[in-house]
Amino acid sequence: MRILVLNPNTSAAMTAEIAEAAQAAAQPGTEIVCRSPLFGAEAIDSAAESYLSAVGVMDVVDRIIENGEWDFDAVVLAGFGEHGRDALAEMLTVPVFDIAECAAHVAHLIGRRFSVVTTLARSIPAIEDRLLLAGLNAHCASVRACGLGTAQVDADPAGAVQAVVDAAARAIAEDGADVICLGCAGMAGVTAAISAKLGVPAVDGVAAAVALAQAVVGLGLSTSKAGVYAPGPDNPRSHWPLSTALGSGVPVS
Amino acid sequence: MRILVLNPNTSAAMTAEIAEAAQAAAQPGTEIVCRSPLFGAEAIDSAAESYLSAVGVMDVVDRIIENGEWDFDAVVLAGFGEHGRDALAEMLTVPVFDIAECAAHVAHLIGRRFSVVTTLARSIPAIEDRLLLAGLNAHCASVRACGLGTAQVDADPAGAVQAVVDAAARAIAEDGADVICLGCAGMAGVTAAISAKLGVPAVDGVAAAVALAQAVVGLGLSTSKAGVYAPGPDNPRSHWPLSTALGSGVPVS
Amino acid sequence: MRILVLNPNTSAAMTAEIAEAAQAAAQPGTEIVCRSPLFGAEAIDSAAESYLSAVGVMDVVDRIIENGEWDFDAVVLAGFGEHGRDALAEMLTVPVFDIAECAAHVAHLIGRRFSVVTTLARSIPAIEDRLLLAGLNAHCASVRACGLGTAQVDADPAGAVQAVVDAAARAIAEDGADVICLGCAGMAGVTAAISAKLGVPAVDGVAAAVALAQAVVGLGLSTSKAGVYAPGPDNPRSHWPLSTALGSGVPVS
Amino acid sequence: MRILVLNPNTSAAMTAEIAEAAQAAAQPGTEIVCRSPLFGAEAIDSAAESYLSAVGVMDVVDRIIENGEWDFDAVVLAGFGEHGRDALAEMLTVPVFDIAECAAHVAHLIGRRFSVVTTLARSIPAIEDRLLLAGLNAHCASVRACGLGTAQVDADPAGAVQAVVDAAARAIAEDGADVICLGCAGMAGVTAAISAKLGVPAVDGVAAAVALAQAVVGLGLSTSKAGVYAPGPDNPRSHWPLSTALGSGVPVS
Amino acid sequence: MRILVLNPNTSAAMTAEIAEAAQAAAQPGTEIVCRSPLFGAEAIDSAAESYLSAVGVMDVVDRIIENGEWDFDAVVLAGFGEHGRDALAEMLTVPVFDIAECAAHVAHLIGRRFSVVTTLARSIPAIEDRLLLAGLNAHCASVRACGLGTAQVDADPAGAVQAVVDAAARAIAEDGADVICLGCAGMAGVTAAISAKLGVPAVDGVAAAVALAQAVVGLGLSTSKAGVYAPGPDNPRSHWPLSTALGSGVPVS
Amino acid sequence: MRILVLNPNTSAAMTAEIAEAAQAAAQPGTEIVCRSPLFGAEAIDSAAESYLSAVGVMDVVDRIIENGEWDFDAVVLAGFGEHGRDALAEMLTVPVFDIAECAAHVAHLIGRRFSVVTTLARSIPAIEDRLLLAGLNAHCASVRACGLGTAQVDADPAGAVQAVVDAAARAIAEDGADVICLGCAGMAGVTAAISAKLGVPAVDGVAAAVALAQAVVGLGLSTSKAGVYAPGPDNPRSHWPLSTALGSGVPVS
Repeated sequence: MRILVLNPNTSAAMTAEIAEAAQAAAQPGTEIVCRSPLFGAEAIDSAAESYLSAVGVMDVVDRIIENGEWDFDAVVLAGFGEHGRDALAEMLTVPVFDIAECAAHVAHLIGRRFSVVTTLARSIPAIEDRLLLAGLNAHCASVRACGLGTAQVDADPAGAVQAVVDAAARAIAEDGADVICLGCAGMAGVTAAISAKLGVPAVDGVAAAVALAQAVVGLGLSTSKAGVYAPGPDNPRSHWPLSTALGSGVPVS
Repeated sequence: MRILVLNPNTSAAMTAEIAEAAQAAAQPGTEIVCRSPLFGAEAIDSAAESYLSAVGVMDVVDRIIENGEWDFDAVVLAGFGEHGRDALAEMLTVPVFDIAECAAHVAHLIGRRFSVVTTLARSIPAIEDRLLLAGLNAHCASVRACGLGTAQVDADPAGAVQAVVDAAARAIAEDGADVICLGCAGMAGVTAAISAKLGVPAVDGVAAAVALAQAVVGLGLSTSKAGVYAPGPDNPRSHWPLSTALGSGVPVS
Repeated sequence: MRILVLNPNTSAAMTAEIAEAAQAAAQPGTEIVCRSPLFGAEAIDSAAESYLSAVGVMDVVDRIIENGEWDFDAVVLAGFGEHGRDALAEMLTVPVFDIAECAAHVAHLIGRRFSVVTTLARSIPAIEDRLLLAGLNAHCASVRACGLGTAQVDADPAGAVQAVVDAAARAIAEDGADVICLGCAGMAGVTAAISAKLGVPAVDGVAAAVALAQAVVGLGLSTSKAGVYAPGPDNPRSHWPLSTALGSGVPVS
Repeated sequence: MRILVLNPNTSAAMTAEIAEAAQAAAQPGTEIVCRSPLFGAEAIDSAAESYLSAVGVMDVVDRIIENGEWDFDAVVLAGFGEHGRDALAEMLTVPVFDIAECAAHVAHLIGRRFSVVTTLARSIPAIEDRLLLAGLNAHCASVRACGLGTAQVDADPAGAVQAVVDAAARAIAEDGADVICLGCAGMAGVTAAISAKLGVPAVDGVAAAVALAQAVVGLGLSTSKAGVYAPGPDNPRSHWPLSTALGSGVPVS
Repeated sequence: MRILVLNPNTSAAMTAEIAEAAQAAAQPGTEIVCRSPLFGAEAIDSAAESYLSAVGVMDVVDRIIENGEWDFDAVVLAGFGEHGRDALAEMLTVPVFDIAECAAHVAHLIGRRFSVVTTLARSIPAIEDRLLLAGLNAHCASVRACGLGTAQVDADPAGAVQAVVDAAARAIAEDGADVICLGCAGMAGVTAAISAKLGVPAVDGVAAAVALAQAVVGLGLSTSKAGVYAPGPDNPRSHWPLSTALGSGVPVS
Repeated sequence: MRILVLNPNTSAAMTAEIAEAAQAAAQPGTEIVCRSPLFGAEAIDSAAESYLSAVGVMDVVDRIIENGEWDFDAVVLAGFGEHGRDALAEMLTVPVFDIAECAAHVAHLIGRRFSVVTTLARSIPAIEDRLLLAGLNAHCASVRACGLGTAQVDADPAGAVQAVVDAAARAIAEDGADVICLGCAGMAGVTAAISAKLGVPAVDGVAAAVALAQAVVGLGLSTSKAGVYAPGPDNPRSHWPLSTALGSGVPVS
């Protein structure tokens, strides 16, 4: 099985971290290929960047197809609370997995109420919206932020882990969560720290998505094309794929 | 007062129709400027095209600002059920009005239950999602499609009006609607036909948004910057604005 | 355009304050006429008084019609959380605007989550009910009370403004509001104080209703008569209008 | 135990029918006293009439108290979907029972999904609102109208019963109801006809309210005065009680 | 009237306490018979014990029927938040009353927002689920635990009453409750203490259920057999009734 | 990996069919062991039988543990809409998967709106309740019944498949489903028939649960013991395990 994991931002370091997390969750025999957009933002902290990232992953997928290099059984979209899953589901016949939704699904399976801990408070509404639209908000106890941005996480990894653990502790004590979903990628050791210090399971979205992708592909199922995920009409587009029009390099080497 | 009306698709004909509808709803003293993206799709019938359009309107707004031509008191985003309002609200200090939300607000003010009539059935979920996220779905009786795409509407305008009236009639009879919101732009005479034949008010989203823009600007209010619409952090972006990178022409002459 | 603004209580001082607020929000060319019931309560702090006020505004409207003095394009009902909008909508062909609903509509247009700050805690449930029935509660972060009654507000206006600002500050900090709706009339300078001290937009219901009335009338729309707001059957009533039976003076001179 | 049953309209015939229904549901030892407002409408088919009736029952209760004739253990408000319960609950220390709410409570106790069958379609929204505000709508399968007004019911009682049975049959077959609540008073034999012909329990609101009044009084409980039903402040009112100002006769002989 | 009250646990002391509470709420002429399962758990503090108790009450009811001793007009299931009401409703033609649901119904009739105070925090979710499934959660302000288990309540009755009063006080102050439902049986004097110290009505589930049983039976109503409570098909069962297979003694002497 | 699959009824034929379906969904290296209760009902078509089955699976699990034969990494509870998952989750440290919940989770991952097709209409409410409590009902378009009971399915397998396909076709056409969940076990070829004839994915609950069990175990996660699934207190039970008291044979050979 080959799974295409899409980091929606353009940070090579983040792409590498996501690839590592995905590979760690993969079964023997599952190959992980991780790609990021050929244009866009290095980090996604706004609706504007989230839309840009959605177009970026659409573009890179189309480039891979155009290059004749499409050979994947499933796609994981590795932006927690970002747009784009529905667009990819329209475009592709293989199933597409959003890491926020997958973390929430796994949380339902092992607990009664989950909280999400993300980085900055400004990301909370986007995650709430994603869960609401996915019909996965009824058992969401809260979405909390640890208050640290990407740069701060990079500068002080140990302090960042502690900040996430602190936010998770409040979610458990004040909001009644019994499972924590990590709404931020690239923080090694966070799930282990939460489980060890707080005694609750912690779910990493990338790992959850890889596991659910393997499960759904293993069942022989894929996106329903009988409803909203049917391919759209062939409306004329200009400058598409954008990366080709921009003269950006080929995505798959 | 100057209102920037953004047609999210790239069809010049549609831009002209939207401009006309917006101007018709403007008070004396309100100037309407209508623009469309410099890249993207001629029609928006999928999530992929909707994301592309959101980036397109973000881009054209940034180009107008870069060109030193920004001089607007409000923005209307004229895609019914499309993405982008939140991104523009982050980027700008003037208020931004989504035509689907504005049609729903006006419908609340003049009736108890409204239905939306759109073009193709595949657009229904996007409109339902928009109303759900905006907190405006509790009084929505239904979202119905007339079943005609853009080409068919252009080829047989009278037939298209009849198809919309038929769908509206079913919304009234079967779903209990007492107001109809038009979820499709560019169809002259539709609201008049619904009111005349069915005896219920019909709300055009572009007109509603212009009217509400005038009302909010008149109140001296604008987007709250205390929450999710605060400007995002200055994350590095590549190829932005995309239209500049693509060598596309300037948007405002 | 002529807008009839109805103060639902019988306080002449409050009627004057509401008239002033309404006039301040009116465009050039909009004439504001402010009236209050010919019987009823000087302040509305209970369900009993709210029903009495609803009958009072129905009565004064009927008296104006009977006197042959009806010449209005819209009606604003200036009780925050009081009954009566639906009854007036049945009786009249011009649109009717409730100030609590209008404040909530404007809040939706400029923010993501609004809180209402009212006077006494006992008014909170009535406002919650109004928003729930209007389908406008999903984005309501909270309804809070500043704890001061009418008399206290009159005795210490500056202290009252501070109490409202304090309640608004809690709504922002604890409930996540990014817009504040004023659920109490007649307090000059409150919206300005909230914006200045707390950095969030503040919406006055009377101003919002006048602005939305102008918008809806400008769109050529009015109350749907196809549903619940159709005129009721001509059931016999005794002593109606009550003010005539009571020998009360004519409302419009 | 003495129960005051309030018919909110002024029809003496309807008052007599309600009294009879109430008495039939009373235990030995329970005395039913039935009163109606001293002013108002003969039938309640609009929001305006509903507000008028609420003030009418407030007035008659105050007159009974003023006359020194108050000697009741509970009050039943016998308007299905009408306003006023909350105002009476504020005014009185004895518990107050709304017949629509009580019918819904009993329906919950004996089935899983109930439908209400009322007279005219225009009454449906008011009943839906009442159930929503009372928190009793989650198990409401539908509110349906039989399409007959009061005059028609009086002119053809047998036909009216059949119309109600027909509407109930549709509620069972199409909406999945397993209990029917009668949303219209004064129709002898309707509950028996529904049970006999359709095989489901039928709940009459007046009977349900009398039974629940007896139950609650028997438990020694009454309206909580710790929240919204605390007595309101002593705001000055003009012309109150209205019936005294109107010179209307004393309510209790 | 004869009411069968079923204590779902096997504690004889608790059965006696429940019988006493039920008898205290019974009218003259109502006979209370209290039974408990012939196998199961002495206290119910888990889902496992709750299912076991549901089967236990099914079994004891079948034994009573088999013994030819069935002669009841209604059944009260006296487990607060436990399973089993629906199974008994299927099996029997007389109505069945769950004490948690009945407490909530009575709370609706006398207040606007109720809280439940139960023993251990681990019982909260089961009570929340019961109210959600019964459609009675919209006006539930909170479910709180006093933190004491059965043994502690027995060891220090006065301290237990104080713990419940303290939890109720928090429900009133922090959650806005104006009625308290007791989610724990067998604590004499608790409702009186809450009313005396906190000034709000307190509802005991056993008493509420007996009162509502009398009301519904008095109305001549019983469980609808037109829906989910129709008797199930005659599927073969092994070892049923379990108590017979176990050689347990006869339930009714 | 070893997964214990529990058929909640006592039918050996059904146990064999479920075992086969589970094995078909298992990866190489996953061992399926299928067991059924040692007492209970041959088919589960009522709340009473569902509770009995919950106790039956609790009992068989305890017997396996007592016998020293527990050696499983996960448990699948193979009753669609039946009780018991929460009790097993309390009792065990390995994760427990309910087939109705798992079918719904998979349906969310591959479509927007799913319908469940079950056997008899009387099973619909139990499935609706399960989805509601699990927080998985927002995207459920409908639960429909094919109208055939177990005996009829056995007597005419081809006709049964057609009945399910017909109900699924109505769910797609009338309710807008784009994924079908099979709410009935033991019907070979049904998912293939739905996909082939209707063009939508069909999800079998047993297969879904096995796949998700493998995914969750693969992630190293298990039931949270920080909330409601913590083990219950050690309350005394009589006759437990019931099967031992009944002298029933050992479950695992």
